Amino acid sequence: MNQHLQTVELSKAYRLLNHGPTVLVSAQYENEQNVMAAAWACALELVPAKLSVVLDKSTKTRLLIEKSGYFIIQVPTLKQLKLVQKLGTISQFNDPEKLPHCETPLFKFEGFDLPAVEDCAAWLICELIPEPHNQQEHDLFIGKVVAAYADDRVFRNGHWCYHEADAEWKSLHHVAGGHYYTIGDPVDANWIDP
Amino acid sequence: MNQHLQTVELSKAYRLLNHGPTVLVSAQYENEQNVMAAAWACALELVPAKLSVVLDKSTKTRLLIEKSGYFIIQVPTLKQLKLVQKLGTISQFNDPEKLPHCETPLFKFEGFDLPAVEDCAAWLICELIPEPHNQQEHDLFIGKVVAAYADDRVFRNGHWCYHEADAEWKSLHHVAGGHYYTIGDPVDANWIDP
Repeated sequence: MNQHLQTVELSKAYRLLNHGPTVLVSAQYENEQNVMAAAWACALELVPAKLSVVLDKSTKTRLLIEKSGYFIIQVPTLKQLKLVQKLGTISQFNDPEKLPHCETPLFKFEGFDLPAVEDCAAWLICELIPEPHNQQEHDLFIGKVVAAYADDRVFRNGHWCYHEADAEWKSLHHVAGGHYYTIGDPVDANWIDP
Repeated sequence: MNQHLQTVELSKAYRLLNHGPTVLVSAQYENEQNVMAAAWACALELVPAKLSVVLDKSTKTRLLIEKSGYFIIQVPTLKQLKLVQKLGTISQFNDPEKLPHCETPLFKFEGFDLPAVEDCAAWLICELIPEPHNQQEHDLFIGKVVAAYADDRVFRNGHWCYHEADAEWKSLHHVAGGHYYTIGDPVDANWIDP
């Protein structure tokens, strides 16, 4: 296991998503695994930590989550741009070998039989809160965060440190068609009006 | 009306939120108006354009939306940092004069009796899709976007142009306690692997 990987207090897990990054969603059911990119993920509750993610009916990952009831939301980095784009455009329904074709490096957190993507900045392991109406009507899936981890080179003491880390650690914010912005510079509202 | 204000096709309205900015939520019921900041807003559907936003039960804006069935989600800019922070920390329940105390510049779009905040980068006018379970259980409000507008100095032809605009136009991404990151630099996954 990556020595920089640290647990994040569940009460601070929302901070991993608060800045609105594009995420990777991974899931497993029996021997099937998949990972997809998603821009529509959002914190939903502080305590107990919950999040929402929109998963189209055309995605294999959604099917795995519906069967297993678990998934991981992870925050990828600029260094992973190519991987994120591929995972977001290739469907496992069309290419059963999607994960090896995308050269997706996977590992598992102890206690969770779920495919985590290596080299991300943060991981939120979620238990699906089944809500048939939201899932069918809105493609909206709600997860209770049961464990959270981050790489201490970019998230420490409950805070993102993008401004102190190498640029390759920056989060990605998809706009459309493979065009992204990275996260930028820190600004503090308290500096202006203490 | 600001001459730079342009309509945005509803099929592209999701792009206004896709990069995960912190937003301002405004609403009106009869003679009562309010505006609050929110980090947990997210696109939900492409066509018809829908979005979700989490509104705590302690907020006055939520109450106005429940009564009126309409709200505006707007994307503020770095220039508005102080305003965003104030609107996100002061409650109108505690300070009935919140809007003037925050020096909140408001205007109205023709046809919508809703308080829009001047100088934002984009505005999504929403009709509440009432979902009592989501609203009560998750504080989650779903809106159908009925009109969208953007300032053409930073969003043109269906695309954000943060990299071509002055830095003061950058979106804000709240992390915690008045600490934000701005949106950063553009990166294109297609440049790497055409």
